Amino acid sequence: FASKLPDVGTSIFTVMSQLAAECGAINLAQGFPDYDPPQVLTEALARHARTSGHHQYAPMPGLLRLREEISRKTAQLYGILPPNPDTDITITSGATEALYGVLAAVVRPGDEVLVLEPAYDLYGPAIRLQGGVPVYVPLLLPDFRPDWERIAAALTPRTRLILVNTPHNPSGAVLTDADWQQLATLLADTPTLLLSDEVYEHMTFDGQPHRSALQYPALAERSFVLSSFGKTYHATGWKVGYCVAPAILTAELRRVHQFVTFSVSTPTQHALADVLAEAAHYEALPDFYQQKRDLFAELMAPTRFELLPVQGAYFQLARYATIAPGEDDVRFARRLTREAGVAVVPVSAFYHDGTDHGLVRFCFAKQPDTLTAAAQRLHKW
Amino acid sequence: FASKLPDVGTSIFTVMSQLAAECGAINLAQGFPDYDPPQVLTEALARHARTSGHHQYAPMPGLLRLREEISRKTAQLYGILPPNPDTDITITSGATEALYGVLAAVVRPGDEVLVLEPAYDLYGPAIRLQGGVPVYVPLLLPDFRPDWERIAAALTPRTRLILVNTPHNPSGAVLTDADWQQLATLLADTPTLLLSDEVYEHMTFDGQPHRSALQYPALAERSFVLSSFGKTYHATGWKVGYCVAPAILTAELRRVHQFVTFSVSTPTQHALADVLAEAAHYEALPDFYQQKRDLFAELMAPTRFELLPVQGAYFQLARYATIAPGEDDVRFARRLTREAGVAVVPVSAFYHDGTDHGLVRFCFAKQPDTLTAAAQRLHKW
Ligand SMILES: CSCCC(=O)C(=O)O
Ligand SMILES: CSCCC(=O)C(=O)O
Repeated sequence: FASKLPDVGTSIFTVMSQLAAECGAINLAQGFPDYDPPQVLTEALARHARTSGHHQYAPMPGLLRLREEISRKTAQLYGILPPNPDTDITITSGATEALYGVLAAVVRPGDEVLVLEPAYDLYGPAIRLQGGVPVYVPLLLPDFRPDWERIAAALTPRTRLILVNTPHNPSGAVLTDADWQQLATLLADTPTLLLSDEVYEHMTFDGQPHRSALQYPALAERSFVLSSFGKTYHATGWKVGYCVAPAILTAELRRVHQFVTFSVSTPTQHALADVLAEAAHYEALPDFYQQKRDLFAELMAPTRFELLPVQGAYFQLARYATIAPGEDDVRFARRLTREAGVAVVPVSAFYHDGTDHGLVRFCFAKQPDTLTAAAQRLHKW
Repeated sequence: FASKLPDVGTSIFTVMSQLAAECGAINLAQGFPDYDPPQVLTEALARHARTSGHHQYAPMPGLLRLREEISRKTAQLYGILPPNPDTDITITSGATEALYGVLAAVVRPGDEVLVLEPAYDLYGPAIRLQGGVPVYVPLLLPDFRPDWERIAAALTPRTRLILVNTPHNPSGAVLTDADWQQLATLLADTPTLLLSDEVYEHMTFDGQPHRSALQYPALAERSFVLSSFGKTYHATGWKVGYCVAPAILTAELRRVHQFVTFSVSTPTQHALADVLAEAAHYEALPDFYQQKRDLFAELMAPTRFELLPVQGAYFQLARYATIAPGEDDVRFARRLTREAGVAVVPVSAFYHDGTDHGLVRFCFAKQPDTLTAAAQRLHKW
């Protein structure tokens, strides 16, 4: 059987989670919380599970009441005019489906798509599945800043789309106002579209705000902006995300969405719509995650891992050079999982060519006890 | 903005459901029950919504316990060896995602895909989105039987896939043992794959059994077989379906699935796994739906609609020639929605070229009161 698919194996997150399960390792590899969604939300799902009439197809773009809540929240959060729920907002099966849908909707065979690396491992294959050509530009170490000169140089008349992600997975780097202004200047007078993956929008630290592409009109008019209830509500397994984009772009995404999944779980959408107006939940998230970041750093201090600064998201990068000089990161990550009993992701998995900076990624979206146990294992090892 | 997408508008189901809502019409257009899932299932969802630890990513191919239940059920139902849960079964965001995923996984630019028309309206566009070429072969009226000679003539060395659907939407036609044998003979010695859409597997009438592609080893070895919990459990809005296929084909589907949606709602999968062993539910479905078919036929007898025979699924086709001779079916369907207050789907929507047989489709997956009210409106009109 000759496969037509880009030569990609199983996603690194699945691989490391499986290895973690086999070894009885604490799973700090795949990014997900080991705590539950707020009780008000799980109770809402239980309630809608029991509500007659909430079990058939939701409208294809999503439940109107959920889109209205998103519109209100987005306007308030970012100080912008409310996106139109009818024409600008689409509910998807997680941000993953939105990402795939945008690529399927706009990338034509031969189109170039700029990807800043390290990048979430599905970007490249999903672009190639559309016949597109990913063009990779590295972020600058040590702080994973965009290299605007190289980005400018990589832009061509065939660049259909540029993908950005802030706060950034795996590094936690956050785009500044100056970054967005740069990007707006670069894209002015080009037909290039923007896909802004902002699923960690509520997780930035040390008072640094998250800025959204939606706040820059010159960008917003050409942007698909993705968000994720899974991230914001500790419910990665509920698989509900959304995309905000101008009507003309939303129409394209929806034409794909209607064939890819058609619609998203009705009772789950009702549950989310019930809680979205409660801003207290997501206003508390920056502190909640900053405390986890700080706790993990404190716990890791006695180890020989060198932690990189983290501005956002829920991942901690760490250099292991003094522990295993010269060892490649895939080998080191597997060894850590098996020998120390703590699973991590090798950062080379986020580079199309396996660039290896000697870094591994820990997910700190875990209960204090889990982080403590993991750090103890690492220290003992 | 120049769209790259195949020139398709909004799905007919969305269009007619919207028109129904605007006109206050009874919606017999889009196919969904107006009753709830079994209480044991909604209670299971409520329970898992409240279960700590059931809210993060499910494994990419689906919860193992749900795949095990599917394996057991499939073996028992079809008298076959159990499909391997590890390698042969994938849980998807509704059968829709499985269908899209199979097409994205196997259809290469320029590949031909045989589609028997009338066909579910997403087949054609989803094929073209992969750069594939849909090759349409009409089913033979009045009973929508496959025309094996024309199918044989349409098969070429470039035919990558043939799509069949039994019980058939919109006609309810059911493939017989002789049909499957024919198909097996036709495909022997070809590299052509089979996508068998069997989402209405539990709805066949008058004692006629549903036969699955899985029961024909020469077909099963090259088949993706789709099923839908939404259809079987009156839960179209839960969006969980699955695909059974040999390991080598499943591997391809999963490589796409991991980028399209990654995984499916964890609490919902747990709820379904809890109830699947209870065969009484789906064993009762043929009678349950046959009674609805018969009730609807009885209620419609006084009208001038001529009902076609229905062997399966939950749709009733009807000829309106004596009511509105010569009127095209789209116009008639809209007029019926607006004037009579009953929404239907024009069957031409199931033909890529809008072939019009003067037929409309009613969904009879409705409570007796709904069917009664609809028939009364139609009669009065
Ligand atoms: C879909 S599994 C990956 C979860 C995640 O976002 C990550 O670990 O980076
Ligand atoms: C996804 S909406 C369409 C539902 C359906 O299967 C039909 O009406 O044919």
